[in-house]
Amino acid sequence: MPIYDRVALIGLGLIAGSMSHAMRRAGLAGEITGYARSAETRATAAEIGLVDRVCDSAAAACEGADLIVLAVPVGAMSDVAAEIAPVLKLGATVSDVGSVKKAVIEAVSPHLPETVHFIPAHPLAGTEHSGPRSGFAELFDNRWCILVPGDADRAAVERLEAFWQGLGANTEEMDAEHHDLVLAVTSHTPHLIAYTMVGVADDLRRVTDSEVIKYSAAGFRDFTRIAASDPTMWRDVFLTNKDATLEILGRFTEELFALQRAIRTGDGAHLHDYFTRTRAIRRGIIEAGQDTDAPDFGRSKISKARVE
Amino acid sequence: MPIYDRVALIGLGLIAGSMSHAMRRAGLAGEITGYARSAETRATAAEIGLVDRVCDSAAAACEGADLIVLAVPVGAMSDVAAEIAPVLKLGATVSDVGSVKKAVIEAVSPHLPETVHFIPAHPLAGTEHSGPRSGFAELFDNRWCILVPGDADRAAVERLEAFWQGLGANTEEMDAEHHDLVLAVTSHTPHLIAYTMVGVADDLRRVTDSEVIKYSAAGFRDFTRIAASDPTMWRDVFLTNKDATLEILGRFTEELFALQRAIRTGDGAHLHDYFTRTRAIRRGIIEAGQDTDAPDFGRSKISKARVE
Repeated sequence: MPIYDRVALIGLGLIAGSMSHAMRRAGLAGEITGYARSAETRATAAEIGLVDRVCDSAAAACEGADLIVLAVPVGAMSDVAAEIAPVLKLGATVSDVGSVKKAVIEAVSPHLPETVHFIPAHPLAGTEHSGPRSGFAELFDNRWCILVPGDADRAAVERLEAFWQGLGANTEEMDAEHHDLVLAVTSHTPHLIAYTMVGVADDLRRVTDSEVIKYSAAGFRDFTRIAASDPTMWRDVFLTNKDATLEILGRFTEELFALQRAIRTGDGAHLHDYFTRTRAIRRGIIEAGQDTDAPDFGRSKISKARVE
Repeated sequence: MPIYDRVALIGLGLIAGSMSHAMRRAGLAGEITGYARSAETRATAAEIGLVDRVCDSAAAACEGADLIVLAVPVGAMSDVAAEIAPVLKLGATVSDVGSVKKAVIEAVSPHLPETVHFIPAHPLAGTEHSGPRSGFAELFDNRWCILVPGDADRAAVERLEAFWQGLGANTEEMDAEHHDLVLAVTSHTPHLIAYTMVGVADDLRRVTDSEVIKYSAAGFRDFTRIAASDPTMWRDVFLTNKDATLEILGRFTEELFALQRAIRTGDGAHLHDYFTRTRAIRRGIIEAGQDTDAPDFGRSKISKARVE
C-alpha cells in the first residue's frame, strides 16, 4: 500500500533513481514524478521509464506531491527550494538526501512555507557511479538512513521513517551538528584521504598505473573506488561541511606528522604503541558484534552499497 | 610430488602457518620443520601439528633443509641469518617473506655463505590476524608473490617460483628498490594512513565508538581492519622502508594540504578538478580490466586474503 500518493524526485541521479526502483519494488508511491536540470538526463530518464512522469521543471514535478525529495548536489538545494516553494501542497513533506545536514537546512528552510513539513534525511548508501542509469532497487537494503527532524511534526516524521524502512533502510534520528561531525569522521575525511592517495599514486611516474593496481588488491584498489565518486557532489560536501572536515583533517595531519617523525627518527616504540592501540580498537569493534572476525572478513556478506 | 625434500619455516605466524597448510594441500614438501622464538608459539604449533617437527632452535630447524623461509619481522632477520648460516646445507635455498626487500637483503646477505642461493620473496597476502593459529591454506590463492632474485642461480629461482605457484600464488620478479617503492605506494603508506585515521576517530570522544562503526559501513570499517594488523611487523616495515615511505608521505601531505586549503578558502574549482582527475584514474583501471564495474563491486569474488 502506498505511503505517499505522489512522490516528486528532484534530481535523477544514483540516489533518486535507486529510490524510484525501491519504491516500485515495495509499492510505496501512487505516482512518481521526476525532474533533472539536464535535458539529457531527463531524456534518459523518460527513455528508461525511471519515473512515471518526467517534468520540464522542478515546480511542475512538485505540484500536488505529498513527498518531495531534493536529490541534487548540496550547492543546488537553495535555488531548487526557492523555485518549488510557491507550488507546495498544504501538509506536504519536503526532504532531501544530502550528505551534510546543517548547510542543507540553512539553504532550504528559509524558502519553505510553514504549511509543509521539512524533514532532512541522509541515506548512508552509494556507489562510485552516478547518473540516471546508475540506480538499483537494493541500494538501501540494510543501510542506515539518518533523519534530522528537529521539531518537525511527529506524525510526518514517522511517516517518512516508514517510507525509508519500506525502501529497505534502517532509520535513526540525530541533530544536524552531530550528524555532520559523525559523517566527517566516518565518511568525508576518509574520502578526502582516498582522493589524495590516488592522486599521489597518479603523480608517481616511476610506478606505472598497472603496477599500482596489480599489486594493490583490496587496499589501494578500494581507495581508487572511493575516489571515483561524483566530483560535484563531493565538492559540495567539503565546501558545506567545512568546519567539521577541517577539524578532523587537522587532527589527522597532527597524528600523521607524529608518526612520520617517528619513522624519520627511527622511534620504533612510538610506532609500536600506536599500532597496538588501533589494534585494540578493532578488537573492541569485533567484541561489540559490529563486524566479523571471519578469515574472509565476511566479505561474501557485504551488500551492494557503500557508505557515502 | 615434493618440490623440496625438507622445508624449514623460521617464525610460525600467519604467513609461515599458511605456507605449511598450503604445502600440505599440494604435497610440496617431504618434511616441514619449524621454529619460533616464543616457547608458547612453539608449544601451540606442536599441539596443533602446524609443522611436522617443531625444533628448539632456528639452527636445528634448518639442518639438512633444502628451502629455508625466514618468516620473522624484518628487524629480526639479521640475527636469525647469523644463527643459521653455519648449518646451511650446500646448495640450499634461503628465502624470506618480508614486506620490504632492500633492508632484508642488507640484513641477511652478509651472513650467508656463497654455497647457498639467497632469493628474497614477498607474498602480497595477509589478514589482520597473527600467530600460529591464524594461518589457512587458501591465503595465497590467486595472490601475487614478488621474487627479488638479483643474480641468483636461475634454476634455483625457477624452483622457488614453482613452489610459490604450488602454494597458489602468481609470481613476478622485480628489483629490490622498485619493489620497495611500489609497496610504499600500494600498501605501506595506505596502511599508515588507515592507522592514523583510526587513531583520530578514537581520540574524538564526542563521536562514540559505536557511532563511528555503526555509520561507517565499508569505508571507515575497512580502515579499522587494516589498522588491526600486527604492530611489530608494521613497525619494522616503516623503519626499514623509511626512504620510500617518507617520500610518498611527503607527496601525500603536500597534496592533502592543497585540498585542505581549497576547502578552507572555498575553492570549489580546485576540488572539482582534483576529484575529476582521480575519477579518470579509476575509469582507466576498469578499462584495463584490473577491476570490475559491477554494482556489487565484485565483492563476492574477492578472495580471503588482503595485500600487506
